[in-house]
Amino acid sequence: MVIKPWGYSIWENIQKVLDRMIKDTGHQNAYFPLFIPLSFLEKEAQHVDGFAKECAVVTHHRLEKGADGKLIPAGELEEPLIVRPTSEMIIGHTFSKWVESYRDLPLLINQWANVVRWEMRTRMFLRTTEFLWQEGHTVHATADEAVVEAKKMLEVYSDFCHQYLAVPVICGEKSESERFPGAVNTYTIEAMMQDRKALQAGTSHFLGQNFAKSSNIQFRTMEGEQEFGWMTSWGVTTRLIGALVMTHSDDDGLVLPPRIASAHLVIIPIIHNEEARPKVMSFCEELVAELKTIHYEGAPLKAMIDSRDLRSGEKGWSWVKKGIPLRLEVGLREIEAGQLNIFRRDKGHKEATPFSVSGVVSLLEEMQANILAKATAFRDQHTIEINSKEKFYEYFSGKDEAISGGFALCHWNQDPAIEAKIKEELNVTIRCIPIHLPPEEGKCIFTGERSPQRVIFAKAY
Amino acid sequence: MVIKPWGYSIWENIQKVLDRMIKDTGHQNAYFPLFIPLSFLEKEAQHVDGFAKECAVVTHHRLEKGADGKLIPAGELEEPLIVRPTSEMIIGHTFSKWVESYRDLPLLINQWANVVRWEMRTRMFLRTTEFLWQEGHTVHATADEAVVEAKKMLEVYSDFCHQYLAVPVICGEKSESERFPGAVNTYTIEAMMQDRKALQAGTSHFLGQNFAKSSNIQFRTMEGEQEFGWMTSWGVTTRLIGALVMTHSDDDGLVLPPRIASAHLVIIPIIHNEEARPKVMSFCEELVAELKTIHYEGAPLKAMIDSRDLRSGEKGWSWVKKGIPLRLEVGLREIEAGQLNIFRRDKGHKEATPFSVSGVVSLLEEMQANILAKATAFRDQHTIEINSKEKFYEYFSGKDEAISGGFALCHWNQDPAIEAKIKEELNVTIRCIPIHLPPEEGKCIFTGERSPQRVIFAKAY
Repeated sequence: MVIKPWGYSIWENIQKVLDRMIKDTGHQNAYFPLFIPLSFLEKEAQHVDGFAKECAVVTHHRLEKGADGKLIPAGELEEPLIVRPTSEMIIGHTFSKWVESYRDLPLLINQWANVVRWEMRTRMFLRTTEFLWQEGHTVHATADEAVVEAKKMLEVYSDFCHQYLAVPVICGEKSESERFPGAVNTYTIEAMMQDRKALQAGTSHFLGQNFAKSSNIQFRTMEGEQEFGWMTSWGVTTRLIGALVMTHSDDDGLVLPPRIASAHLVIIPIIHNEEARPKVMSFCEELVAELKTIHYEGAPLKAMIDSRDLRSGEKGWSWVKKGIPLRLEVGLREIEAGQLNIFRRDKGHKEATPFSVSGVVSLLEEMQANILAKATAFRDQHTIEINSKEKFYEYFSGKDEAISGGFALCHWNQDPAIEAKIKEELNVTIRCIPIHLPPEEGKCIFTGERSPQRVIFAKAY
Repeated sequence: MVIKPWGYSIWENIQKVLDRMIKDTGHQNAYFPLFIPLSFLEKEAQHVDGFAKECAVVTHHRLEKGADGKLIPAGELEEPLIVRPTSEMIIGHTFSKWVESYRDLPLLINQWANVVRWEMRTRMFLRTTEFLWQEGHTVHATADEAVVEAKKMLEVYSDFCHQYLAVPVICGEKSESERFPGAVNTYTIEAMMQDRKALQAGTSHFLGQNFAKSSNIQFRTMEGEQEFGWMTSWGVTTRLIGALVMTHSDDDGLVLPPRIASAHLVIIPIIHNEEARPKVMSFCEELVAELKTIHYEGAPLKAMIDSRDLRSGEKGWSWVKKGIPLRLEVGLREIEAGQLNIFRRDKGHKEATPFSVSGVVSLLEEMQANILAKATAFRDQHTIEINSKEKFYEYFSGKDEAISGGFALCHWNQDPAIEAKIKEELNVTIRCIPIHLPPEEGKCIFTGERSPQRVIFAKAY
């Protein structure tokens, strides 16, 4: 996958905000190697099982000409190297040298990096062989502290999705069968796309002492004993761009929430004849200069003039597709009338309203709130409680796509066998056991057995 | 190589400033795949020759258990993949789809990424198998425009090194034998380390139409003809951190120029008894809060209190080694005397001078200038004109390390055979043909033949 400039600038905006949030919660960035020796990966049995089927393996370190003059791999490595699918094992190896005493804890590290998981069926931004992400890795002196950390970072992700991406997510725990390979517990944020399928948008793992034991991360306690560290890891990826696209797009293309948009406002000069050009252009240049003096989200408003040599209709349409929040069309008529009209991307593409420079920040914030409210209403509209097996099968059987599917809140007896059966029969999985849902005792809709809490079932990407 | 937080934050500061400079010159960031199919690499003969000896090759896409139960590579790929040593070929492939008309030009793209060049002898920050860098890739309608671009980006690198890293560099052209594989011309910035060896700190290449032809990047001219694009590429890497370390460090450790430093000022509370603690700590907290209201380099001053449970001498020393520009030791005595003393890292570690909050920015700027001046004086002191072969051999023969070596400005007949001989006999290479040196006709010191300009010879990393 190539990420083009407009898409990449969304990733840069995600990085900028999330990096600040990660640092504000006490973490520091570092960088660890791309290649993991095969023997490192093998140290944690569940972990290697989880990734062995989908990892790129480096076996040679040069090329040479074969008998037919074609280049072939040469210089075979004594030990194959795995291109990191995630960095627990290489970071664990390093942490074992950094951690000696309780004074070194908590160790709170984050890395921005590329990772590779070999995918047979790729899907743009959602499932790509290589993707970009951040991965946090922490070591703590106690299990409680590590659980607090894992949950705290899940809330950071949730806040980020709500406040910036305008993607409402549900925080929850994964069921045992959906946990990260090697984790004691996996927390997740789950979003609903416009086809009502769930998208796992980020995860945070409480790793217990599993990885500390396999990487030998021990610390001296205040009492002088040796103990294994308690660890967490957590990550979000370029999949967030996919979540953004699939949550907010409409038939005309992307709709970008202003706080994360690559640019906020484009001015399209309307020039019907060459005589009008100097007047229109100088008006637009003064306007854009004025707009750039306004601050939004801690930086100058990103406003620009589209002066490309294209018809204005074509220009306008190109920005609609790209999802820029605000579009101003400025011609002699508007200048002479002293009245500019603004097109909001979250409204129909022909609906214009009067524009004032002084109102631009509150307009952007109104749009941000509007886009989140729309996505939340959609999600809530397609989230229902289901209390019988029959209703459940009807809801997910997909006979009538128009009315079926979404998030189903159901009681379940916590049996992985039931979960596996549902997955096989309906391709429906437990997305999470919601954290913020009030506890409600009930009866499993599949078995009638005791259930401590409703869980969310859905089809998923 | 693992880059620890303090070192990585230097890279983050480099990225922040350089990214702005790259965008201010009209470039946009994008992201391209890590893996390059072998057949892509083969398209440019010189290019593949240059990298075939040092590339990591992915040949399998999963692991499975072998007969002995050990994991072995499985799922052999039909075509091996090369882990990018540089991205000309994968970006060229993409650009061939992006470029159709002169209207699409210039295409000005930059990528921040990791790359891999298999090194047998690695050296921290200078020569590592994996390193981080930015690589610019551009396409232009004319050769002239591409040359202007390549030289412009070299000047951007030079400005960055002078103004931020306080590393004085010399801009020049590489001789033919030192060019990037496949380039028509390679421009370089060369710095002098404290052992008087040269370090190539960044390069910018005019690629002519070589890569456009191998990747089939054609555009329709204004006159309706099809023409191949003219390209450039340019990059700097985590090697810049090595340049910084080796230019400014002293016997006590790192010396960080303030504009690129991970933090600017540390306050070390001196607490001789527990009674004094509340008074000293609250004074320090007020002081750090005040310091953080000051802006430096477009952001709040990075000031902090070191409240670790360590002896203050040990704390102070740890910050000296890390190279933090300013160190304040605050105890009851200083508070009562109303006089704080500051330790400047660019001065001897025991020399303190009176400190005032209002003077901190000008103090940092004075240090920045001082560190650059010192490095420049060192470089100039060890740069000499040599006008005879005998003197040249004496200078570089290394019999007396204390007086030999440095940059030698010499006339040379432009013959690669002479260059090769010098390299073999003395391990001395032509670092560059300086761009900003006034032209001076002369006679080659090795052959007596005509020379159009002095070039710089040196030993190098």
